[in-house]
Amino acid sequence: MFVYDDMLQDRRPGILVVHGGAGLDAHAEGRAQRLAELGHVVFACDMYGDGVAGDRQRVMSCINELRADRRRLCERAQAGIDVLASHPQVDGRVAAVGYCFGGMTVLELARNGFDLAGVVCVHGSLSTTRPAQPGSVKPRILVCHGALDPHSPPAHVVAFIEEMNHAAVDWQLIVYGGAMHGFTHETATGQTPGVLYHAPSDVRSSAAIQRFLDDLFSMHNS
Amino acid sequence: MFVYDDMLQDRRPGILVVHGGAGLDAHAEGRAQRLAELGHVVFACDMYGDGVAGDRQRVMSCINELRADRRRLCERAQAGIDVLASHPQVDGRVAAVGYCFGGMTVLELARNGFDLAGVVCVHGSLSTTRPAQPGSVKPRILVCHGALDPHSPPAHVVAFIEEMNHAAVDWQLIVYGGAMHGFTHETATGQTPGVLYHAPSDVRSSAAIQRFLDDLFSMHNS
Repeated sequence: MFVYDDMLQDRRPGILVVHGGAGLDAHAEGRAQRLAELGHVVFACDMYGDGVAGDRQRVMSCINELRADRRRLCERAQAGIDVLASHPQVDGRVAAVGYCFGGMTVLELARNGFDLAGVVCVHGSLSTTRPAQPGSVKPRILVCHGALDPHSPPAHVVAFIEEMNHAAVDWQLIVYGGAMHGFTHETATGQTPGVLYHAPSDVRSSAAIQRFLDDLFSMHNS
Repeated sequence: MFVYDDMLQDRRPGILVVHGGAGLDAHAEGRAQRLAELGHVVFACDMYGDGVAGDRQRVMSCINELRADRRRLCERAQAGIDVLASHPQVDGRVAAVGYCFGGMTVLELARNGFDLAGVVCVHGSLSTTRPAQPGSVKPRILVCHGALDPHSPPAHVVAFIEEMNHAAVDWQLIVYGGAMHGFTHETATGQTPGVLYHAPSDVRSSAAIQRFLDDLFSMHNS
């Protein structure tokens, strides 16, 4: 799904939005919409393929397959980047913003040398089977993490800090107290254990993402 | 040292600035000046007492004494808060911003139930001998931490996350990649091992502090 303000005529940075585990849904589309309102050309890709989102069994199968095969995960995302980068209003600069499953995806892109300006991981999995190596990471990295996220406990946070200290050049990690996994999902009311909307952290992380993207693209217009 | 814009006539929040290990110096005064320019009434207190800053032996003795006696550390800071709160232009709301030694100080104030609106710890020590307990922490907390700070290694970060998860209500921790201890000290050129100025993290943490204080006092004017 492409979202952009067609009244803006100049070429601009492109933002790839990578959805959470449920697939390309109202959450991912809503976040794409918000980013478009900030003046970016946004493409919310579908990592699973037509017809998978909404089919729980096929969704779980896709997640497990892509989690286990990080190369394939990156290839799927690259297909989305290619679509975005070929848009006539994208000026050659691309960043990726991912949530949950998508957060893991954009970190894998960063770890594996993909040529992005920046990546933002929001309540994504921080662990990996192939840690970043010095010199391999090109994008600036921002991680927005819930302190109570049971899928990424403090031990994963430490491993991530150590991995980034070893390998990455420009990265930041924000830990939000009181936030569980999925803290930006407005509809997460606790039906899935460990996943809960947390309004203060949604507001704060949205502001941090906006600032990160502004700094990245030197827009300074917010 | 008091710093405020005397052209502003209305009563406003007060900010206590707590200096780093060297004592009340140009760094602490410069940070106080910046906070005053944002519209706060700022008091940069002297935790050591007259004539100590600049005398290396007395400074070390003060640090060691106050590190070992956290109750006394808090009493010294409270004296500063009292001076600030009694200023006719302070509206009853007070936050504290501390650097290095001062960062440790403001976290101890938070841990020990001091009635502040917010505290900001910038490259301060995160460890404590008396961890915060549920219900004891009143202020909102923001921690700005250098990922390469040898005085607060990743293990201290994890312990702090776990302490805050257990005890605090509203807290955030930002880890800045590439930043060592003392990353806001413009004059730190590496002569002290582990201490180095890091311009990107200085800029980013300053913006985060400004946003935190604006949110805290609902100023929304930046």
